[in-house]
Amino acid sequence: MSAGAVSGRAKGATRLSLTMNQPTEPKADKSGVRRHNLSLVLRTVHDAGETTRAAVAARVGLTRPAVSSLVEQLLDLGFLVESGKTFSGQAGRPGTVLKPADTGPAGLGVEINVDYVTVRVVDLTGTDRVRHTERLDNRAADAPEVLARAARIAAEALDAAAERRLVPAGAGLALPGLVSGGTVRQAPNLGWHEVPAERLFGDALTTLRPGTAGLALTSDNEANMAALAELWSGTLGDLRTFVHLTGEIGVGGALVVHGELLRGAHGFAGEIGHLVVDAEGPRCRCGSRGCLEQYAGQAALLRAAEASGVPDLVGRAGSGDRRALAALAEAGRMLGRALSGAVNLLDPEAVVLGGIYPQLMPWLAPALAEELSDRVVSGLWTPDAGRLRPASAATDASRGAAALVLHDVLSDPSAYAATGAGAGTAPNGRG
Amino acid sequence: MSAGAVSGRAKGATRLSLTMNQPTEPKADKSGVRRHNLSLVLRTVHDAGETTRAAVAARVGLTRPAVSSLVEQLLDLGFLVESGKTFSGQAGRPGTVLKPADTGPAGLGVEINVDYVTVRVVDLTGTDRVRHTERLDNRAADAPEVLARAARIAAEALDAAAERRLVPAGAGLALPGLVSGGTVRQAPNLGWHEVPAERLFGDALTTLRPGTAGLALTSDNEANMAALAELWSGTLGDLRTFVHLTGEIGVGGALVVHGELLRGAHGFAGEIGHLVVDAEGPRCRCGSRGCLEQYAGQAALLRAAEASGVPDLVGRAGSGDRRALAALAEAGRMLGRALSGAVNLLDPEAVVLGGIYPQLMPWLAPALAEELSDRVVSGLWTPDAGRLRPASAATDASRGAAALVLHDVLSDPSAYAATGAGAGTAPNGRG
Repeated sequence: MSAGAVSGRAKGATRLSLTMNQPTEPKADKSGVRRHNLSLVLRTVHDAGETTRAAVAARVGLTRPAVSSLVEQLLDLGFLVESGKTFSGQAGRPGTVLKPADTGPAGLGVEINVDYVTVRVVDLTGTDRVRHTERLDNRAADAPEVLARAARIAAEALDAAAERRLVPAGAGLALPGLVSGGTVRQAPNLGWHEVPAERLFGDALTTLRPGTAGLALTSDNEANMAALAELWSGTLGDLRTFVHLTGEIGVGGALVVHGELLRGAHGFAGEIGHLVVDAEGPRCRCGSRGCLEQYAGQAALLRAAEASGVPDLVGRAGSGDRRALAALAEAGRMLGRALSGAVNLLDPEAVVLGGIYPQLMPWLAPALAEELSDRVVSGLWTPDAGRLRPASAATDASRGAAALVLHDVLSDPSAYAATGAGAGTAPNGRG
Repeated sequence: MSAGAVSGRAKGATRLSLTMNQPTEPKADKSGVRRHNLSLVLRTVHDAGETTRAAVAARVGLTRPAVSSLVEQLLDLGFLVESGKTFSGQAGRPGTVLKPADTGPAGLGVEINVDYVTVRVVDLTGTDRVRHTERLDNRAADAPEVLARAARIAAEALDAAAERRLVPAGAGLALPGLVSGGTVRQAPNLGWHEVPAERLFGDALTTLRPGTAGLALTSDNEANMAALAELWSGTLGDLRTFVHLTGEIGVGGALVVHGELLRGAHGFAGEIGHLVVDAEGPRCRCGSRGCLEQYAGQAALLRAAEASGVPDLVGRAGSGDRRALAALAEAGRMLGRALSGAVNLLDPEAVVLGGIYPQLMPWLAPALAEELSDRVVSGLWTPDAGRLRPASAATDASRGAAALVLHDVLSDPSAYAATGAGAGTAPNGRG
């Protein structure tokens, strides 16, 4: 045995002795530590877009050999790719460039809404690779039929993805109602009640494409999924606490606090569309009266404006049609009234308006901003404070659903690799 | 060197070698680990009330010698005491009983409200040891005068505490308004605006009792403090996500999500008293119209009932006075309307009503429960679901303020010991 090895031992003994005198945290599970570090390295490369081993090591505080070992595993698993070129813009020696793979694990995102279904496949670099939307009235069909339709669209999207050598790491379902445990508890605008959406969708997809049997499914309210899309791939910058409102047939809401969705005790938080803006107002499908949705939902807004659709409404408002302008001002006022309550409760940095609202902002914003300014106690919501923002064009619930799948992969790549759903290369057994 | 020690070294070498091949988390700071474990042991004894070293070791997953070393330090610092008796109800050998000390570090809690000031001193066992309340109209004095009064009451309470050998580990200020950075940004019911409350209180207290110079101060909205008191020493059991409403001159609100106060982006979350229940209703002091406070705050309620005070209101309602009953039913309805919004947004497990509300529940609850049942989308808020609860009798904002101080001590006893404010015995330098 070499002197070096003995010296290594002696150091080891000293450390152990310290450890025995010095209580430490309950020992971390070794494979747990490696899993954690594998995720840390993958996320670091993902966030950087492209980087080197040396830059990753500097960033995460692990040794260069440790990072190299983790990178090798991520390359073998198909999560990362390296390109021949080198660059030296970072500290340390120039190295091979590392990037997330644009083949292999991908997120399948499925949004089922009242009048459309959208399916997306997003790769590990965060790029949309496949997107199919079908406009159809989902109120006219029963729940199993709607979910079977969505599965058909998803199956076709997966075929297109396979041609691009993308393999779904899981599927996220964005649903327009209260969702918990894979089931839509209630979706008033679809007339759904206790619909086991994950099971129905999964069964239909497996029938069409048997290879998807066992695909991990996750589901949530579409407003929550849209808020996640905004958080992870929108243009909010450092903004991490916001209220997200989506104008569709209904009005969906989601709350993001310090970068996390606030889901509540049962997963039903964020129902801004059912805040009461006029206690004696019109009956809502939820059973209450005078909910925001009855004034600012797409159906209510088009009815009040006598418009045939959102493009027609935009056209009429642009040409100064009085009825359209009055309907939009009233919707803006009611949005402001409900949102002042949400802001007084949650003290967000911003309110983000998505769905049909971004294109209607010129006409909604004045009354909305005035209500917020008048009613928010903190005084932080003056009209010029820039706290009212349209959602990014690229974000919607299907993108959030796909991103949620990728988020899970990035958080624990080992778990995904263990399912055997990898890009073709088996784990190399190192570890 | 004994064979045992050599064997120890050999083991150490093996471990080190594994560690070198196997990337680990960035190394934890050794003194950081000991600080963390010191807190872990102290909290474990605190939560148990009384226990033994063996039971603590079993609970926290540290070795018995490690726990003994930490316990010795906590005994030296005056955080724990041991009693001579032994018991064997737990796993392991019977041992000396360990308890939190009822002398030494204590929390000073000060609530300044519109018409009273309450000061408490709470010891490490969680027991109230001193409590002074003075009823006085704080609207009639300017802010520095009100804070000087509070400091005088606090100084007297600290004298009483010193007789019981209690030393303040810090002071918590509960204030009726929007609080951030030690300053009351706005307190509409006191007419305060940008009042540096911590500084004014601290200066006044130091003038009266120079020994308190450097005492750590913390401040928050009184509703947040009351919610913390309910969370930490109320009767909520496992309930960890709730909305807390406090009826005072104003209506304070606080949101607790998974056991943490939801403070929002600037610390202004929870303003349930300013949810709009009637957009065209009476002007509120906050500048808005038709806020909940204008219907269910103490001042509004007494005015509507033509009652001289809360006891008078309770008496009138009990004897069937129509005006009192109508005012209470209306307040209940408006509470229900605002709370349905809060519940739709946050999906809590329960709503807790404190301040003047618990004694008014028989008359408030029917209309309140009906509104919740009609307006909460999830359908979980049927009148018989038991989700509407009066606050515990023993909890209020001054108790929460004291508990917040103790919470800080329990989270990092080393930091407190380092201030030299300990119970008299210096740290023994072990470490």
